[in-house]
Amino acid sequence: MKKINIGLVGFGTVGVGLLKILRERKSLIKEKTGFEFVVKRVCDKDFITRRPVKLDRYIKTKNVNDIINDPEIDVVVELIGGINPAKDIIINSLSKKKHVVTANKALLAQEGKDIFKAARHYKRNIYFEASVGAGIPIIKTLRESIIANKVEGIFGVINGTSNFVLTRMSELGCSFNNALLDAKKKGFAERNPSLDIEGIDSAHKLLILVYLAFGKLFKLEDIYIEGISKISLSDIKFAEEMNLVIKLLAIAKKEGKALDVRVHPTMVPKENMLSSVNGIFNAVYINTDMMGDLLLYGQGAGQLSAASGVASDLIDLARDLQSSSNTFSEKLFLRKPELEKLVKIADIQSKYYIRFMAIDKPGVLARIAGVLGKFGISISSVTQKGRRRAKIVPIIMLTHESKEKNLRLALEKIYKLAVIRDYPVAIRIEKEL
Amino acid sequence: MKKINIGLVGFGTVGVGLLKILRERKSLIKEKTGFEFVVKRVCDKDFITRRPVKLDRYIKTKNVNDIINDPEIDVVVELIGGINPAKDIIINSLSKKKHVVTANKALLAQEGKDIFKAARHYKRNIYFEASVGAGIPIIKTLRESIIANKVEGIFGVINGTSNFVLTRMSELGCSFNNALLDAKKKGFAERNPSLDIEGIDSAHKLLILVYLAFGKLFKLEDIYIEGISKISLSDIKFAEEMNLVIKLLAIAKKEGKALDVRVHPTMVPKENMLSSVNGIFNAVYINTDMMGDLLLYGQGAGQLSAASGVASDLIDLARDLQSSSNTFSEKLFLRKPELEKLVKIADIQSKYYIRFMAIDKPGVLARIAGVLGKFGISISSVTQKGRRRAKIVPIIMLTHESKEKNLRLALEKIYKLAVIRDYPVAIRIEKEL
Repeated sequence: MKKINIGLVGFGTVGVGLLKILRERKSLIKEKTGFEFVVKRVCDKDFITRRPVKLDRYIKTKNVNDIINDPEIDVVVELIGGINPAKDIIINSLSKKKHVVTANKALLAQEGKDIFKAARHYKRNIYFEASVGAGIPIIKTLRESIIANKVEGIFGVINGTSNFVLTRMSELGCSFNNALLDAKKKGFAERNPSLDIEGIDSAHKLLILVYLAFGKLFKLEDIYIEGISKISLSDIKFAEEMNLVIKLLAIAKKEGKALDVRVHPTMVPKENMLSSVNGIFNAVYINTDMMGDLLLYGQGAGQLSAASGVASDLIDLARDLQSSSNTFSEKLFLRKPELEKLVKIADIQSKYYIRFMAIDKPGVLARIAGVLGKFGISISSVTQKGRRRAKIVPIIMLTHESKEKNLRLALEKIYKLAVIRDYPVAIRIEKEL
Repeated sequence: MKKINIGLVGFGTVGVGLLKILRERKSLIKEKTGFEFVVKRVCDKDFITRRPVKLDRYIKTKNVNDIINDPEIDVVVELIGGINPAKDIIINSLSKKKHVVTANKALLAQEGKDIFKAARHYKRNIYFEASVGAGIPIIKTLRESIIANKVEGIFGVINGTSNFVLTRMSELGCSFNNALLDAKKKGFAERNPSLDIEGIDSAHKLLILVYLAFGKLFKLEDIYIEGISKISLSDIKFAEEMNLVIKLLAIAKKEGKALDVRVHPTMVPKENMLSSVNGIFNAVYINTDMMGDLLLYGQGAGQLSAASGVASDLIDLARDLQSSSNTFSEKLFLRKPELEKLVKIADIQSKYYIRFMAIDKPGVLARIAGVLGKFGISISSVTQKGRRRAKIVPIIMLTHESKEKNLRLALEKIYKLAVIRDYPVAIRIEKEL
């Protein structure tokens, strides 16, 4: 029986899940792959916190070099997250001719260039299924299944925390803050949830998907990112009345010879399946030129889902280890960028939902519409919510497709009108869905 | 540059699509896989019908042995469908040490045993992504991505023709016959659509999925199959009022130590994503023990979607050809059956929608309910549709979970009541969705 020796770095939630799976499914994996997976060393700085799986004492180490320098270890599974020291650990492991499995989306998105370069240089493979959508086979599908297709667009609900919060607001009719508290109580949000709530985590994942689909690893600072913290219950409710659902959407689509890549709250029509992705579930919608639309949906987070993604990477490794070239699967995503330029957010064209808080008196609508018209923004529908003469009421407008730059200028102007309270809320409506 | 020589058997819709893809994406595939794919021979009995791709004369042959006996051909792509002569072609190709790619679900479902045995015997691989859901990576996901998971259940909308017909009836409010005519006009139904409409095609695909998920290839005659030809518009409409959608569902789920495998029209709650799979789209919902629910959705038919599935198989072959063992990917689905026994349809437990056509007069409900009660079937809701004293009206009942055998006996009895017209219509409501 051939063996694959694993060095596990990071004995947290996912690491424990991986050990559980490898133990419980030992014979199944052996039978299917012909390999025995052996966890030879586990590194963590803390072995005092109790975990539901037991480790032999001689397996544990607090020194990651015990793994990196162990010539018998074939693959290093990095599950500590964050940039440092994860980056050094991965690059040093590759330099010692070890393959690497990681779930670290922040690292791949921000430092992927160096990491993929090191993998090529040392002729070792790097696997990262669990970095996007945990066990949902998104990476594998992009790398292997649809590679004779060209991707036209990607639309993803890829952050479980934000999606849980938005779903909760919609289902219970509660505020953003209460929904977030609820998410924390249930363990679906971290103590400091800003990476998730502000769209950064979605952006990290999107950059990885864009790299696989279009061949270029863009930088976080080059793309537009807007989180969900300003979404109010009233906008969710007004959207529902128009058969629209607000999702934190990660978007990447071709616009001529450039790519439009962004993360922001987006209104999705109820007919589109992405609108039904609720709670902590994730989904990625891929539009391809040959086979049309594809949707992958599942648990985008959670111990055993993430660990299943890592396990599928290990099984891929087993397959590649039988290969003469060792780097076949790596080639599947290394190619010349198809598109290198990004569309600036000011230049995008979108439909918009806009909520104005305005004094209920004759002539208000005309003034708002007048400004919008001056900036070339045409309105497809207007609804005033409620009737409270001389008091503040919400006015909801949907626009036809308009240029973002013009919309922003118009809103700026409208905000200055005496009849308007609060800065107008604008939420993009995705036309491709 | 390494080359893979392809012998294509069947120059129909999908064959033409494959040639298109291999030509248009030649350099992309080369760059990603390191292999050049060359279509060395194409076999068909008809080269007179014009196709949108041109073939050099010396490539064409009407004799399949020109492919099977060509020692330079590495892989035979079988796209003629049907049992004979496809089975012989595949087994002879394997015996000549060629790998095989096929999209032939009927053949794999019915003769898979012999075919997989031959592949093992001759140590060659067989790939069949396009046999279920065309280019949707369902086979790959079951074989590679979730193999450390145990599958608990599979629920699939996997026949585009039936789904188009049901969607059409619901959207246009037309009869089954008109919807089917429409499907034929649009090219979504064959002239003789009975394989699709009567559930046989779904059953073929389901048997393949069950083989991959549970390790045993069951026989068509061992499972319960019911098509959609008896579905009436009124049942679709009544279901909609209760937030249920009728789908032709392929179901396989564990019930204790047995497997419950069946194909029939099923009511799916609107909250479940399968209810939103419309028109010719396909989706497979996989419930796993470690990573929960997974849904794969996309174009389950169509020239370029099916050809994309075949292309992804060829790319898998390229990967495996670099392997020392040659049969690694085959191992991924060959294991001892997890479950060998099937649940009989009479023994299943389900909730039911029942429509009775009964005379509108006092006491009718009591008589129906009385019979149901005697057979241990309890009712969760009753609605009489319309009020036409002493005329025939539909009565809709939903039951709690009941044994199918008892339901059938009860319906038999109720049908004999003088107040009842027509045989009662019963449609299962899937409790797991």
